[in-house]
Amino acid sequence: MSPPDPGPGSLAVSGVPGLPEIVAGDSIGALVANAVALLAGDVVVVTQKIVSKSEGRVVPVDPADPDAKRRLAESEAVRVLRRRGELVVTETRHGFVCASSGVDLSNVASGFAVLLPVDPDRSARRIRDQIRAVAGVDVGVVVSDTFGRAWRKGLTDVAIGCAGVAAVVDLRGQADATGRALEVTEVCVADEIAGAAELVMGKSSGVPVAVVRGVDPAWMRESSVRDEVVRPYGEDLFR
Amino acid sequence: MSPPDPGPGSLAVSGVPGLPEIVAGDSIGALVANAVALLAGDVVVVTQKIVSKSEGRVVPVDPADPDAKRRLAESEAVRVLRRRGELVVTETRHGFVCASSGVDLSNVASGFAVLLPVDPDRSARRIRDQIRAVAGVDVGVVVSDTFGRAWRKGLTDVAIGCAGVAAVVDLRGQADATGRALEVTEVCVADEIAGAAELVMGKSSGVPVAVVRGVDPAWMRESSVRDEVVRPYGEDLFR
Repeated sequence: MSPPDPGPGSLAVSGVPGLPEIVAGDSIGALVANAVALLAGDVVVVTQKIVSKSEGRVVPVDPADPDAKRRLAESEAVRVLRRRGELVVTETRHGFVCASSGVDLSNVASGFAVLLPVDPDRSARRIRDQIRAVAGVDVGVVVSDTFGRAWRKGLTDVAIGCAGVAAVVDLRGQADATGRALEVTEVCVADEIAGAAELVMGKSSGVPVAVVRGVDPAWMRESSVRDEVVRPYGEDLFR
Repeated sequence: MSPPDPGPGSLAVSGVPGLPEIVAGDSIGALVANAVALLAGDVVVVTQKIVSKSEGRVVPVDPADPDAKRRLAESEAVRVLRRRGELVVTETRHGFVCASSGVDLSNVASGFAVLLPVDPDRSARRIRDQIRAVAGVDVGVVVSDTFGRAWRKGLTDVAIGCAGVAAVVDLRGQADATGRALEVTEVCVADEIAGAAELVMGKSSGVPVAVVRGVDPAWMRESSVRDEVVRPYGEDLFR
């Protein structure tokens, strides 16, 4: 398939259908490059679950043990921040704050759990390199996952890794006409791209990859979620 | 202008150029409906600042007073949650947690500050009704603002009001094949739509309105950010 041409001032966000079930060792980049006609400057958003499966980040759990998920979540955490009933909110080794350290028992064979990639920025770089090798184009890659947040109900997809596209950009950092209110607006475009992709993944259930076409070319640069997005423990006001 | 047709499985996100500077009493819905060929099922995202200006939510401040913004932010808050240097993180009367109660001194005449709309869901409904009256089509409307968040650096655009489009939808709430992991995934699509719109607003600086075309028709229903997104103080683990 080929995503639509969005034209100037517009973006197109398209799900990539027809990918096979991903197993350890699969080259996600090669599969995506063969499924969709990518252009230089496209951003490919890949959900964490298939990235983790391709990297073998699947571990056995006892399906009869009601505490298996919680214990696994704690073993993947550097801190347990909150507990309420079954819910544990943890800080992962990557510095992400999320439910259950991102451990997931859904959409995986019974008796197994999927863990977050060890280094999601590296996962994104690998997929970017696989796409370049197969399709000969430089794209950005965002690895996304679905996280809750403080203060607001509902989950949104955010970036846990990226390559070849900025995580955070200064979109409107200029003095206004009076020179008085110099406001730096550091926008986390990687999270907004992940969320936009989620809108079409949800639309076509079971589609784990989307392409965002029309992203500002100035945003296509080396970057990482670890350096640009993760707020260190000591700098955070809400942990 | 006319946004591109995204086709099945895709979304198109387009900035709406050419709107005039908004002043109190302007009908944003009429201006948008005359600027862009809207279709039923489009979602129109309008940034808070022009909504506030159209509603006269602009107040005088002493430009020589370095504490003016902080005092105004506190007067708009029901709680001050954190202070660090110049930064105050507050809970607004609406229940939003954000910097300075959303009070903004940029892109407004010197000596004035822009406050959040009194009822952003009502603002969204009004714009939706204005569009229906002029263009004869039913659209969704999201009023967006740029907020920081806990744990992650960078800001993202989120929904502070909506009408005619779901704020939160249950996208993947089904048992998996084993029946074991019944996971309810309540996705805040209004925030993801607001973030997607920000990507084109930033791209074309000074564009305060965007159209998202291709949203799942099942999401077009009555809703509100207040009821579906705002997490009450007593139910939040991080306040």
